[in-house]
Amino acid sequence: MTVHNFNAGPSILPKEVLEQASEALVNFNNSGLSILEIGHRTPLFQNIMDEAVSLARELMNLDSHHEVLFLHGGATTQFMQVPYNLLDETKTAAYIDNGVWGSKAVKEARLFGNVEVVASSKDKDHTYIPKDFSVPADAAYLHYTTNNTIEGTQWNTIPETDVPLIADMSSDILSRQMNFNRFALIYAGAQKNMGAAGVNLVVVNKNILGKVSRKIPTIMDYRIHIENGSMLNTPPVFAIYVSMLTLRWLKKMGGVAGIEKINNEKASLLYEAIERLPMFKAKVAEEDRSKMNIVFVAANPDIEKDFLEVCKKENMYGVKGHRLVGGFRVSLYNALPLSSVKAFTALMEDFSSRYN
Amino acid sequence: MTVHNFNAGPSILPKEVLEQASEALVNFNNSGLSILEIGHRTPLFQNIMDEAVSLARELMNLDSHHEVLFLHGGATTQFMQVPYNLLDETKTAAYIDNGVWGSKAVKEARLFGNVEVVASSKDKDHTYIPKDFSVPADAAYLHYTTNNTIEGTQWNTIPETDVPLIADMSSDILSRQMNFNRFALIYAGAQKNMGAAGVNLVVVNKNILGKVSRKIPTIMDYRIHIENGSMLNTPPVFAIYVSMLTLRWLKKMGGVAGIEKINNEKASLLYEAIERLPMFKAKVAEEDRSKMNIVFVAANPDIEKDFLEVCKKENMYGVKGHRLVGGFRVSLYNALPLSSVKAFTALMEDFSSRYN
Repeated sequence: MTVHNFNAGPSILPKEVLEQASEALVNFNNSGLSILEIGHRTPLFQNIMDEAVSLARELMNLDSHHEVLFLHGGATTQFMQVPYNLLDETKTAAYIDNGVWGSKAVKEARLFGNVEVVASSKDKDHTYIPKDFSVPADAAYLHYTTNNTIEGTQWNTIPETDVPLIADMSSDILSRQMNFNRFALIYAGAQKNMGAAGVNLVVVNKNILGKVSRKIPTIMDYRIHIENGSMLNTPPVFAIYVSMLTLRWLKKMGGVAGIEKINNEKASLLYEAIERLPMFKAKVAEEDRSKMNIVFVAANPDIEKDFLEVCKKENMYGVKGHRLVGGFRVSLYNALPLSSVKAFTALMEDFSSRYN
Repeated sequence: MTVHNFNAGPSILPKEVLEQASEALVNFNNSGLSILEIGHRTPLFQNIMDEAVSLARELMNLDSHHEVLFLHGGATTQFMQVPYNLLDETKTAAYIDNGVWGSKAVKEARLFGNVEVVASSKDKDHTYIPKDFSVPADAAYLHYTTNNTIEGTQWNTIPETDVPLIADMSSDILSRQMNFNRFALIYAGAQKNMGAAGVNLVVVNKNILGKVSRKIPTIMDYRIHIENGSMLNTPPVFAIYVSMLTLRWLKKMGGVAGIEKINNEKASLLYEAIERLPMFKAKVAEEDRSKMNIVFVAANPDIEKDFLEVCKKENMYGVKGHRLVGGFRVSLYNALPLSSVKAFTALMEDFSSRYN
């Protein structure tokens, strides 16, 4: 049976990654042991960690100031870990609030210091990316979300600012070329473009650390994780292994440049169908549309249920929009093949013609 | 090839669990999707979470005051999360320092309030369990480690106290019968008796929560995790699935009572061999010896290397002692079959007779 997986996360992974991980669960590297049964301080696992870090460095083209960490938890953990490490109680951090996840990040940061929301798209339900804003020169950092999974918006440029720039890239990490060295800190839950749920990629410029006056709990302290090569405690071994396999696959696909080309093609194909078919309608400002999460609605809301039924029948998963915005959402992460998008747009056309 | 896995953690898991997890990685429940590719808010995963919680409740025989959570991270995360939720800045928590992990827990708690170490076994390198101590009646809680993975000691009784009792059970959870309801809070990294690295089991009496005056970051707040059924954010889906499978297996083995019988047999067999063979020597006070991690040395340290060589040749993994204590450590977690202990004691005997 052919299935098409448009889930927003956890989401589709490359077939070969899943097959290798499946094999490693019963016999890792011909050790006779499962990947779940090996000590994290053995060369068997150290090799995995080293390769994961080195692939991330290579694919993101990182300079020597930037460290790569694989940490427990998801982006929600980072909402607290970032200000814990970087925002003194008396200082102010600038946040851009352009979606549900950005708003959550603001809420956590307020527990650690002052927050100034320098730009927001709340006035139009976060259906666009704020363009004009200024950041106080003495802000501890500027935080934003590069891609909004729920609302379907995405930044096409990197915000200009002189303060350290921090980005939650959970839902578009490694999907397109960027100057990753421009960022003081990047974090991303792995479960969209980088592997399984339960691990965070954190890329941090080590020069920004060690400047807050509070004492940081060991497990929250980026510096200690750097010193310990992400092995302060037992790391999420399997999730890191799956990330390593996913990064290997990405390199084989031509790296970030290679996947970006395919991602552009997938997104164009789908947006073009939405524009062409009167039955469907995009909700997001044209210049701010996400290439990862395509959010749209039916021109006539009454047909939404029928269309979702048809999708289900055709084994197309994850098409229902997030409960906060309704309508449809189709996620086109790195591992989703172009053929799935073609199948989906064909279904849209077929449904449109039969419905009229 | 037969391998014997005495790793201290991550460690051996039941073969059938690994086989089921391996299958689920390529086709979960005949969905055509991998367990890594399904949304955590789908019925597919909700069923896993529900079954994991319900099995934990049943196997631990929990009352209605106790909630079961599966949270990101390992025990090291709990070292901070416990005082964050339960220790006010002006209050004092009592800690028993009887091993490396207990000491680390003390260090983190000091960042949140006062800590009184009410008992310590530091004077004899933590080779025994402190017996006589008293806990201040107004302590916020008493924290201890039920089993010390590194030093090979284990509590045979539950400390008597009137203050809320908190235990790190990472390395002996569900290995023996206990009145789990006696505890205000229990936590355990899953990677020893309960599954894969990357998830914590937390059992908490909800009546103790909500009493500190500080504001708790969302991801740290047990109450919010309870309200959200451990799905405040994307949970470590795969690690929770493996825990559910491991709990299913444990139930089939006769539950905690059933596994305790086998665990007792395994530990007796090994300690008996250590006592009988002059070549080997236990380090831990007899009444405090762990049934999970058997720590011992060679009477003549010169032969240690040779013995480890022989173990390696026979595919016996994880016999080398922790770097802090040296010698040997053989871990006998729930999933380790009696046959592995028999093979190991036979090797000890054979080595002893050939060496003399």
